[in-house]
Amino acid sequence: MLKTLLIGFGCCACVLALGIVIGHFGISKPESPALSWADDVVKDVDENFITTFLSEVDNKEIEQNLRELTKVPHMATTEGDEQTVQFMLKRWKDSESGLDEAWREEYSVYLSFPDPKNPNKVTVVNASNAVLHTVREKEINYTSDQNDPNVVPPYAAYSPPGNIKGKLVYANYGRPNDYMLLNETMDLRGTVAITRYGGAGRAAKAINAAPYGVVGVLVYTDPYDINDGLMSDQNETYPHSWYLPPSGVERGSFNTLYGDLLTPYLAAKGIVQKWYSPSEITPIILKHVTFSSKITRIEFPALDGKMAPNDWQGSFPCPYNFGGPGFKAASTFKDSKVKVDIGNYDVVKNSSNVMGIIRGSVEPDRYVIYGNHRDSWVHGAIDPSSGTSVMLEISRVLGRMVKQGKWRPRRSIIFGSWGAEEFGLIGSAEYTEQYFTKLSERTVAYINVDIAVNAPGFESTSVYDNWIKYTNKTSPTHGVIPRFLEVTTLRLSITSGSLLWTCPTRTIGARIYPAYHTAYDTFDYASKYIDPGFTSHQAVARTAGNVLLRLADSLLLPLSCGDYAETLEDYLKEAVMQYEEQLKAKDLSMEPIKLAVSSFRRAASHLEEVIKNSDLKNEPLKVRMINDQLMLLDRAFLDPLAFPDKYAFRHVIWTSSSAGKPTFPGLADAFAKAASSGQQSDWDKVHYHLSILTQAIEGAAHTLTSTF
Amino acid sequence: MLKTLLIGFGCCACVLALGIVIGHFGISKPESPALSWADDVVKDVDENFITTFLSEVDNKEIEQNLRELTKVPHMATTEGDEQTVQFMLKRWKDSESGLDEAWREEYSVYLSFPDPKNPNKVTVVNASNAVLHTVREKEINYTSDQNDPNVVPPYAAYSPPGNIKGKLVYANYGRPNDYMLLNETMDLRGTVAITRYGGAGRAAKAINAAPYGVVGVLVYTDPYDINDGLMSDQNETYPHSWYLPPSGVERGSFNTLYGDLLTPYLAAKGIVQKWYSPSEITPIILKHVTFSSKITRIEFPALDGKMAPNDWQGSFPCPYNFGGPGFKAASTFKDSKVKVDIGNYDVVKNSSNVMGIIRGSVEPDRYVIYGNHRDSWVHGAIDPSSGTSVMLEISRVLGRMVKQGKWRPRRSIIFGSWGAEEFGLIGSAEYTEQYFTKLSERTVAYINVDIAVNAPGFESTSVYDNWIKYTNKTSPTHGVIPRFLEVTTLRLSITSGSLLWTCPTRTIGARIYPAYHTAYDTFDYASKYIDPGFTSHQAVARTAGNVLLRLADSLLLPLSCGDYAETLEDYLKEAVMQYEEQLKAKDLSMEPIKLAVSSFRRAASHLEEVIKNSDLKNEPLKVRMINDQLMLLDRAFLDPLAFPDKYAFRHVIWTSSSAGKPTFPGLADAFAKAASSGQQSDWDKVHYHLSILTQAIEGAAHTLTSTF
Repeated sequence: MLKTLLIGFGCCACVLALGIVIGHFGISKPESPALSWADDVVKDVDENFITTFLSEVDNKEIEQNLRELTKVPHMATTEGDEQTVQFMLKRWKDSESGLDEAWREEYSVYLSFPDPKNPNKVTVVNASNAVLHTVREKEINYTSDQNDPNVVPPYAAYSPPGNIKGKLVYANYGRPNDYMLLNETMDLRGTVAITRYGGAGRAAKAINAAPYGVVGVLVYTDPYDINDGLMSDQNETYPHSWYLPPSGVERGSFNTLYGDLLTPYLAAKGIVQKWYSPSEITPIILKHVTFSSKITRIEFPALDGKMAPNDWQGSFPCPYNFGGPGFKAASTFKDSKVKVDIGNYDVVKNSSNVMGIIRGSVEPDRYVIYGNHRDSWVHGAIDPSSGTSVMLEISRVLGRMVKQGKWRPRRSIIFGSWGAEEFGLIGSAEYTEQYFTKLSERTVAYINVDIAVNAPGFESTSVYDNWIKYTNKTSPTHGVIPRFLEVTTLRLSITSGSLLWTCPTRTIGARIYPAYHTAYDTFDYASKYIDPGFTSHQAVARTAGNVLLRLADSLLLPLSCGDYAETLEDYLKEAVMQYEEQLKAKDLSMEPIKLAVSSFRRAASHLEEVIKNSDLKNEPLKVRMINDQLMLLDRAFLDPLAFPDKYAFRHVIWTSSSAGKPTFPGLADAFAKAASSGQQSDWDKVHYHLSILTQAIEGAAHTLTSTF
Repeated sequence: MLKTLLIGFGCCACVLALGIVIGHFGISKPESPALSWADDVVKDVDENFITTFLSEVDNKEIEQNLRELTKVPHMATTEGDEQTVQFMLKRWKDSESGLDEAWREEYSVYLSFPDPKNPNKVTVVNASNAVLHTVREKEINYTSDQNDPNVVPPYAAYSPPGNIKGKLVYANYGRPNDYMLLNETMDLRGTVAITRYGGAGRAAKAINAAPYGVVGVLVYTDPYDINDGLMSDQNETYPHSWYLPPSGVERGSFNTLYGDLLTPYLAAKGIVQKWYSPSEITPIILKHVTFSSKITRIEFPALDGKMAPNDWQGSFPCPYNFGGPGFKAASTFKDSKVKVDIGNYDVVKNSSNVMGIIRGSVEPDRYVIYGNHRDSWVHGAIDPSSGTSVMLEISRVLGRMVKQGKWRPRRSIIFGSWGAEEFGLIGSAEYTEQYFTKLSERTVAYINVDIAVNAPGFESTSVYDNWIKYTNKTSPTHGVIPRFLEVTTLRLSITSGSLLWTCPTRTIGARIYPAYHTAYDTFDYASKYIDPGFTSHQAVARTAGNVLLRLADSLLLPLSCGDYAETLEDYLKEAVMQYEEQLKAKDLSMEPIKLAVSSFRRAASHLEEVIKNSDLKNEPLKVRMINDQLMLLDRAFLDPLAFPDKYAFRHVIWTSSSAGKPTFPGLADAFAKAASSGQQSDWDKVHYHLSILTQAIEGAAHTLTSTF
């Protein structure tokens, strides 16, 4: 396997200018004279300070952070989680390298756990309910870490408790098309579907199954999808390599929403009363389908029915059949059913975010937020502790500078260590709900580093060189540049980025690293196979810190509205190519949206001219005015009515789309639906999305001029 | 009648500080030295300039404006409307007293007009359809104005065309309780209800009737409700006094929403495609009920049935009966029905706003908006031209100062002359939809002066003295102060005020001046009976201009978060008194909301301390930071999900409420519903409103500190 390096910078907005500068740090500037009040107000980012910061980021410190964070399992709200809370607080309150202030923000949130007295079970039972086979309930231990009694057994969080029994069928990734095809070969009512991870979200595998009368869904990881295709033998996997051992199980939440389920759009603080009761939210989670998540290499060879198509085949050494439903008459499982017993229980528990702040000197009311979740499923060395270790190293270096009086950022830097992310982004969602208006009005950008490094590999050139080599795009304005991976954005619509070392060349494009959400994601695993020496972690810390400092200290925010225009133009081009002809046939015109994109480009060019022609060093209020325009640009694309069926999505450019086209998500989804149904009411929705897009883009363009 | 003066300042937010300063203009300050850049940035409002402004506001100019604006009828989108557009543009582009720039913003909007070929008719017909009586179709002319062929005959805009026939009944004000009582005396199915203006919105009179099977609703003005009780004889009314003549009819829109009906939440620009078709919006307007608006003093004496209660009686010299339904056997209308023929047609037409701007010198990206609608039903001398005349005088005085280089506001001043208001606030709503984000992020305040003066009367003391004498309140913080009338706020949640001279002592508290929306609202009427000499108009212009200048020029915005806290405390007190006991019985606690209001008060006091302890003259960025907090405070109370059934309402403090209590509107409405139905799902809604209120108030409190 070619070992290479890549940074994907997920970006919801106009952060492009960042990419350009990252490759060029180290340009020195003359030292500032002693600061007077006026000098302070117009001070720009200090390149020497960035150089110092980069040199002080220490891989050994990161390694030590990771060792500390991964001592014990730290699933949300457990005792291990509380230990990490204390550790973060201790570090951020340290008198020599801590922040200005650090504190805990607690929420009481709705969680789901397996019941030790009533463990989850998947068995094969015959007609007289005799158990013919029991699926393994926990992973095989290879290191002492895994002997910890607090290793949570594999389970599907939020799967409602209950017992079901049905004939087994194989449903590939559990995508809508998978069930549609399967349904053509048999009557699915009363069956239990086994699906493999990948291709569709966890809960989607069950939601997609429900219309066909499937009563239960099992999810397992096929070696094909995680171990670079074929490696699945016990000797080829961890502890012998980074590959997932056969008994490894990916845990996960089967909640489709974001934030605490009982308090949608409201912070789950004591002060806010619970709005939903669990019985009311059950329909969101699904009523009749029960989940489990188990590897099984015994059931597959026994499955009856026709052989499934090529792209349904995995890496177990047998053909993958659809199922009869059920097992072959020739197998020991003849006439048997699969029985699933779920003993999960739901509970409201206190989960903590740990927050810290370095207050800004000139614009304390402008925030650059840097965050990561703290909770894991088991030890979580990679997910999320690699990112937390990096965050702690950045805060250590910056905190020390502040404590020594050597530096204070222009804008406030807020660090967030979120709780209960694994259950559905709960800690960060509650935080944004609690401080919604304040954050929306004042946040310059959010940087997230969750999994910092998820694959081995390093080339000894610069981050920038690696980035532009392996993940690039050609921009009409800038030529070849590092490519940012675009991400969707939820309610707040704050310019956001996520950094990650990954490996672009894994054979089959596995969606994640092999030990993800299993009991094998430990310090041993991370330090042996992912990043021995922690130099990749160090590079992430340097890069993320560099971005953070430029956002916090630049006089003019490093956000480019021209690059935003480029994205809109790309999206428009794709939309015209994909949809214009068919829209015309329905009497729907794309001219308004074309005019809107032109208006946006014109307004962006105008603002760029204003910036170029301004004497920013002498006009502190004008700098603030321009920065406000850049900071708030993304907010102009919010429409709380655009996606009534998509919880928390409001951004007409950066919302998740199921159509999978690199274009306007609402239009793409509406078009796909109308083209498939042919119904006038669906074409009306296309019409609606054309209208709201047009108005949003025009509205955003208006914000790029200071008056009228 | 005691003739007195009053200014009601409708206020959605924290404008209280304004009230305090208005009484004290004229305090002089030393002249500024020659401006350097730094001085300019921290320049405060200039009291000498305000004094100059006040002295230049000219009553004769206002009179001349009104004469010009009321030459011809100028209903929205008619030729007369276009003449007023041209007049506004000419004035605002004038080289000696115009603004920096003025332009037209056009929207194509859905309107409803009577069809001259198919006029609306109300007749009494006997069993063989012979017409026994026809209700007058237009007002009697008393002045030459009314001979204008463009006087639109009385009609109910958006009443769907059609013909209905039914027995007549009298339904008082058409409130829910009125129909409920009426329904106890007879079967209302198939009847036509006659209702009087007042007590309920126009459309509500029909919406409330629909559940009982009423097929048509007529609306008339009872002399009791408009002519101070009893005066209704032809010799006592206009042209002999300001009272409404017997043939006067109040026109009006029976649309319950705001803005263009075909493009809800979207600007009705060419660039945005129409989203609803008329057939889809009909249900909003009502399907089976037809409106008309006619005075009738013939039908009443003939109405059969029991005599209606005292508070149903009006000023016609006869007892008001419920109706049989239908007429007395002894009357000439025996066995007759009322027939209503509506010939309205709907049409999409271009309506214009006229916009003008004086750009700010220091903070051009902060807007103080001053507006009024321009369209009338007929000549509209009072509604809206009294307000437009005042606006033009303010813009003339300020425009001249700008053209002469003597003054430029710190912040931009935007003037808006809205189109098609009478049909449902269309011009202003489309404007806010088009520039939603830009206005929301940058508008300091909005001042509306529609009807500037609606009653005769003046006492020769100052505006402030009159105000505090006739409309005051006692504040725990400030003692006795002028009272602001609180108004609801729609989507944007911008601090807003509305100014009006009115008369607090009219005998029965008539809801409006007698000629409102009739053909008698002419220059003759206004100059003879409402404000001879135009000195009341002048006082409004001075006061509104004074407020405008303080909002535009003050270094620190004259908005008080402490006064906002006071309102929240008043609301809370009322809510605790009204609801706490019953909430406790339902296990719902008011403690969270009490804590939230305390948090808000604490945060407001903190900000007031910060302001007091700041050296604002030397900290331009800090001033901007504090001003942003004050300007945006109201935005923190927006929740787009709080009122799913109330179009365009999002503000959890300033939304319209039907419960009529001076407290939190969502809570009050939810409580009234739950207390009446007793259903658990309704108590859950109360719970929900407690939660969103708590979070909104806490969230607003958070915005009053600059960091965390």
